[in-house]
Amino acid sequence: MSKENLDLVGIGNAIVDVLSKTADEFLAANKLHKGTMTLIEADQAEALYAKMGPGLEVSGGSAANTVAAFASMHGKAGYIGKVANDQLGNVFRHDIRATGVTFDTPALSDGPPTARCLILITPDAQRTMCTFLGASVWIAPSDLNEEMVKNAKVTYLEGYLFDRPRAKQTFRKASEISHLGGQKVALTLSDPFCVDRHRDEFLDLVKNGVDILFANEAEILSLYKAETFETAVSHAREVCALSIITRSAKGSLIVTANETIEVNAEPVTKVVDTTGAGDMYAAGFLYGYTRGKPLSDCGRIASIVAAEVIAHVGARPQIDLAKLLKEKKAV
Amino acid sequence: MSKENLDLVGIGNAIVDVLSKTADEFLAANKLHKGTMTLIEADQAEALYAKMGPGLEVSGGSAANTVAAFASMHGKAGYIGKVANDQLGNVFRHDIRATGVTFDTPALSDGPPTARCLILITPDAQRTMCTFLGASVWIAPSDLNEEMVKNAKVTYLEGYLFDRPRAKQTFRKASEISHLGGQKVALTLSDPFCVDRHRDEFLDLVKNGVDILFANEAEILSLYKAETFETAVSHAREVCALSIITRSAKGSLIVTANETIEVNAEPVTKVVDTTGAGDMYAAGFLYGYTRGKPLSDCGRIASIVAAEVIAHVGARPQIDLAKLLKEKKAV
Repeated sequence: MSKENLDLVGIGNAIVDVLSKTADEFLAANKLHKGTMTLIEADQAEALYAKMGPGLEVSGGSAANTVAAFASMHGKAGYIGKVANDQLGNVFRHDIRATGVTFDTPALSDGPPTARCLILITPDAQRTMCTFLGASVWIAPSDLNEEMVKNAKVTYLEGYLFDRPRAKQTFRKASEISHLGGQKVALTLSDPFCVDRHRDEFLDLVKNGVDILFANEAEILSLYKAETFETAVSHAREVCALSIITRSAKGSLIVTANETIEVNAEPVTKVVDTTGAGDMYAAGFLYGYTRGKPLSDCGRIASIVAAEVIAHVGARPQIDLAKLLKEKKAV
Repeated sequence: MSKENLDLVGIGNAIVDVLSKTADEFLAANKLHKGTMTLIEADQAEALYAKMGPGLEVSGGSAANTVAAFASMHGKAGYIGKVANDQLGNVFRHDIRATGVTFDTPALSDGPPTARCLILITPDAQRTMCTFLGASVWIAPSDLNEEMVKNAKVTYLEGYLFDRPRAKQTFRKASEISHLGGQKVALTLSDPFCVDRHRDEFLDLVKNGVDILFANEAEILSLYKAETFETAVSHAREVCALSIITRSAKGSLIVTANETIEVNAEPVTKVVDTTGAGDMYAAGFLYGYTRGKPLSDCGRIASIVAAEVIAHVGARPQIDLAKLLKEKKAV
């Protein structure tokens, strides 16, 4: 695979998901709040894992899910993220490469193991996530493949990664390299709480280093400390050249300096598992964007692929997205 | 968990399954025969894995699936098998313990990694398996927890393990210990080709060390080099106190010196994936057997739990089998 001329490079937490079915009582007994994502340390991860039921391991990570979906649409994608030199790291590396994504970030050889996300699925199909970040946050500016970033049409940054100083430096450097190459930088806010912890730095990054912002309602409200959705949208319009705000079943909003485009959500017969919806949406939008499609078309492609992923368990597509888009006459 | 008074101890290959969807062309290009199980070495496993699509990791192993299902019926079960001291070994250990099974075989610290089975699923829902046995065949007689085996009502041996000298010694010793304790020994033949490779030793084991034999049609024909099913059954009747022969949709046959009981297969709306059917059947049968049920009832329980596992993807039960048996009024 050539590293030149990629359409998209994702930078994020390289994580293996461990899925396990559980009862509501288990969440209560372990003081976990349904539907949230909590960061946990190695010893907490070990203690929780010991109590959990049998698991199922599958590669995850928000930006990694996005580039995997992008490749499934036959877009050229790369990934930059840090695994450890261990079996779960090999699993992650294998799986992302098997989707056709270029991934050559060296593994961490002396440090914590590969990151994992313990995902507890309750009978109501909701997911409660506990993430042990492990090796993934040991990413450093030196891990950036500069040629790859400089030549990719879009570099996509995963907000989840923005919790540690080295990762922040990595984001800033990636943004500089991308812009030096005349390319675009996208950011997904990922988590309202992470935004809250690092609001000033996020605001600085969005203002000075980001061209395309992805957020859901909670995240955009958190970023601008806005009380109403309308206020948040007007802030977004002023600050960022292109903001895309996803609103679950209400569809999404594409906001530029002089335009607001409303995009309907694609109908889904049965929502099985909403995990990965935002990741897929970004993949679809950026697929259209890097092909020079009008913004409304980008939004439609995004909605179609997001609808695919919420109709089944798991955060990565289970069908050939390129074929799906053809069937839907979206490309 | 107390190690005394277990109902069932399983001894088998401790394996993590790696499931991946693939096209028929992939099987052809890699000279794999659909529906078969092939043993592969470490370098072959690595080469095949590199070519495979994204995977999904889940604990497997034939006897391990059986004891996990046995525990799901609220039977007291233990397991003896060899994993390596690595992440996949930890996954295997976690998952089997999480089902309620006692498992304390020490991990192999200096040798090959934990065994894995690369499972290629074609669009017709058939599975083609390539197994790298890794640490699992390094099991030795010293790994037997003698107290556990001596006190368990039934010790269940997985034929797949019978390919290496140390494993054969382990089987013979387990049989001796179990019989010294006045208990029963069960064997599943697992694979007609493994039976063919070691026929004389299998015949000796069945004749002198086994009380309960599980086999499917191909395996029982292979064991007795019989040309017809009837001949194989009459051999089985002479040699082993209790033989159970599974025949897929045709149900199963329970054969003793003076009885032949035909058991109907439990109806299934849609067969999704037959992997694990034999493992579940053995679990159900032995559950009834260790509770002193009549043989026909044992067969019915076996058929009910086998039907559960073939109605979904995956070789371990996805529901509470104890509840299922109650609903079916089988216990």
